Amino acid sequence: MAKKTTSPAVSPFAPARFPALPAIAGLRLGAMAAGERYRKRADLTLMELAPGSSIAGVFTRSTMPGAPVLWCRKHIAKGKARAVVINAGNANVFTGRQGMDDVAATAKAVADAVGCKPSEVMVASTGVIGETLSVDRLVRAVPDLHGKLKGNQSKNAGWSQAAKAICTTDTFPKGASATAEIDGKVVTIAGIAKGSGMIAPDMATMLSFLFTDAKLPSSVLDDLLRWAVGQSYNCITVDGDTSTSDTVLLAATGQGAKHGKVTDAKDKRLASFKVALLSVCQDLAKQIVGDGEGASKFITIDVTGAASAKAARQIAMTIANSPLVKTAIAGEDANWGRIIMAVGRAGEKADRDKLSITIGGVVIAEAGHPHPDYREEQVVPHMKGQFIDIVVDVGVGRGKARVWTCDLTHGYIAINADYRS
Amino acid sequence: MAKKTTSPAVSPFAPARFPALPAIAGLRLGAMAAGERYRKRADLTLMELAPGSSIAGVFTRSTMPGAPVLWCRKHIAKGKARAVVINAGNANVFTGRQGMDDVAATAKAVADAVGCKPSEVMVASTGVIGETLSVDRLVRAVPDLHGKLKGNQSKNAGWSQAAKAICTTDTFPKGASATAEIDGKVVTIAGIAKGSGMIAPDMATMLSFLFTDAKLPSSVLDDLLRWAVGQSYNCITVDGDTSTSDTVLLAATGQGAKHGKVTDAKDKRLASFKVALLSVCQDLAKQIVGDGEGASKFITIDVTGAASAKAARQIAMTIANSPLVKTAIAGEDANWGRIIMAVGRAGEKADRDKLSITIGGVVIAEAGHPHPDYREEQVVPHMKGQFIDIVVDVGVGRGKARVWTCDLTHGYIAINADYRS
Repeated sequence: MAKKTTSPAVSPFAPARFPALPAIAGLRLGAMAAGERYRKRADLTLMELAPGSSIAGVFTRSTMPGAPVLWCRKHIAKGKARAVVINAGNANVFTGRQGMDDVAATAKAVADAVGCKPSEVMVASTGVIGETLSVDRLVRAVPDLHGKLKGNQSKNAGWSQAAKAICTTDTFPKGASATAEIDGKVVTIAGIAKGSGMIAPDMATMLSFLFTDAKLPSSVLDDLLRWAVGQSYNCITVDGDTSTSDTVLLAATGQGAKHGKVTDAKDKRLASFKVALLSVCQDLAKQIVGDGEGASKFITIDVTGAASAKAARQIAMTIANSPLVKTAIAGEDANWGRIIMAVGRAGEKADRDKLSITIGGVVIAEAGHPHPDYREEQVVPHMKGQFIDIVVDVGVGRGKARVWTCDLTHGYIAINADYRS
Repeated sequence: MAKKTTSPAVSPFAPARFPALPAIAGLRLGAMAAGERYRKRADLTLMELAPGSSIAGVFTRSTMPGAPVLWCRKHIAKGKARAVVINAGNANVFTGRQGMDDVAATAKAVADAVGCKPSEVMVASTGVIGETLSVDRLVRAVPDLHGKLKGNQSKNAGWSQAAKAICTTDTFPKGASATAEIDGKVVTIAGIAKGSGMIAPDMATMLSFLFTDAKLPSSVLDDLLRWAVGQSYNCITVDGDTSTSDTVLLAATGQGAKHGKVTDAKDKRLASFKVALLSVCQDLAKQIVGDGEGASKFITIDVTGAASAKAARQIAMTIANSPLVKTAIAGEDANWGRIIMAVGRAGEKADRDKLSITIGGVVIAEAGHPHPDYREEQVVPHMKGQFIDIVVDVGVGRGKARVWTCDLTHGYIAINADYRS
């Protein structure tokens, strides 16, 4: 049942076109080629926020974070930002003292252009580790780039520019948006993300920049963002590897329709906003999985019946990260023995004699042995499809979790035995 | 620097020929084709031990162990065995009540042939998960197979037969031996192993059967085996996946040169025996890594300067299991940024500003930044070789660990998107 598993130049899960994202009042964004690493493509992105904007962020849990992550962690605590600047091609990680100086110089150049303090500029970088930035190129490019933003806002062209400019091995730019109501007033959320390899769910797992025109204090943004990330970016994995640069930012300009003051993320008036925020985060997270390096299958794994939600997630992630499960799916083989193996390896409580496995709605195993009615032919059409659904009930409790991943193909090897990240 | 990473039919690390293993007094072994799964190759292995032999074993930590593992765990506690029977092609895992009955039937057939109790027969299986054994075929084959053993012993042909018959996706049979002295008397240790994929260091990690003609009680064997496994089979990884069937057995026939009674593994008279046992276990463990599915590079990772030996091992294993590190090495790229990423992801204490990385003796990074004298050309010859040595000092303590792994190539994908394990 094996088929060729090399990957096409563009992921089969790429949308036909980049979505038409709405303008966010108080946000201007754009990108240009600064020549830090890439030739003939934009690699420097600038996002300018109206005065009074609030911000929150979650960052990689890596013990080797990049200089931009250290900068953001230090300054985001104040909850205010006037700009976000991102360069692609060089992650500015493991660059010692020079790396910190380079972040400061970049933030200062943006602050000078925007007219704010450097501490109000958030910085993110993605790309090669261990090489010093050509920071002069970035600094020199900032005034020109800032000059472009006004024009972009009117045409709303900035989203697409930015979504492309933050990419590295991504095969398509990623954007999503949604609207919500607060006090009956319509507010908008829109965002972009990048990520394709080095994706694992240990905190934020890639770069994502989310914006709303609602007026929300940073403490509320922080709570909302952590909640949404826990059910989106932290539920995806491509290769189990965690980047040193993972960053998710959520900024609120407060320049949209006027609504009443909100001071608590638990406020019931945020119900619709939470749905919209989660929808945007899950949409972007799934796009990252769909652009997983070499992905040919999009896999949804539900684990139920676990001792706790945490145990369910651990089991689901062990299945999702198993090279043997991922390669079986690449080969369109409903090799559920490998799922058993992964459940056994996860180290969480599971009752072999109650365990059941369902693939594509077909019950394959139940009560500790193969289902007597199961015939492999039943699940073949599902395995040949692009979307694979696996449900595993481990029979010990009520904990459940859902994670998303992709298969492991020759494309992943080709990309990563070649590209220097 | 990328090169083609498809794997040859036989691992480049396969020895020119199977080693000439010595006869172990009191052990007879051999194999034959029982037709359980494979056609035209031996797949059923029998090892007969002299009366009075002692045995110890370590088994998978999987929460979904196969029926043979459950059988062995139950019966090995008595420390006695007269036979070991192994079938390849069907792991007898997740086969419910029937699986247990099939193990018992196999053990009984062997016990009848050998003239012992079924509880003195250890059983191991490897292969497909979730399919019921054709146990009648195995049972029917046992008397013939037992009849062969005597002849094998005189020619010493049994080792090679057995080493081949326990293989599944292995590309070469694996054997090793060593001699030691106890009380000035020469004793011998010899063993075989199989394993290629689904290899990770969570307890025993594959099948291995070790024998000595020394006279050692099972309590001593148990302590010695756990100690040796911790520094050999538990220090290797191919894909981070842990089998449901992992089994390592160590049996002592007591039929060799007479030495004084030993009752404690800490007995200083075992010094030479421990060296020999560890040598055999590490030799077999490294052969498994060298036969890692699709392996083109044999990688040794030393982590030093960690908070503890356990922390060092965790960091080393995170590097060893990183698909990004493994694919970079497959591509002969000294992409040390991915090593930094893996260290950061391991979750153990590491001081970024004291971290150093050495590859093939070339200091690449030191004190939190790239070494000023490092030029990529320096490490190119090493990366093009078959044996890659990585040393990472994380700068926080004195803990250290060494692990062995292989690279991740197109060969791994080809094998696993195709083979049903």
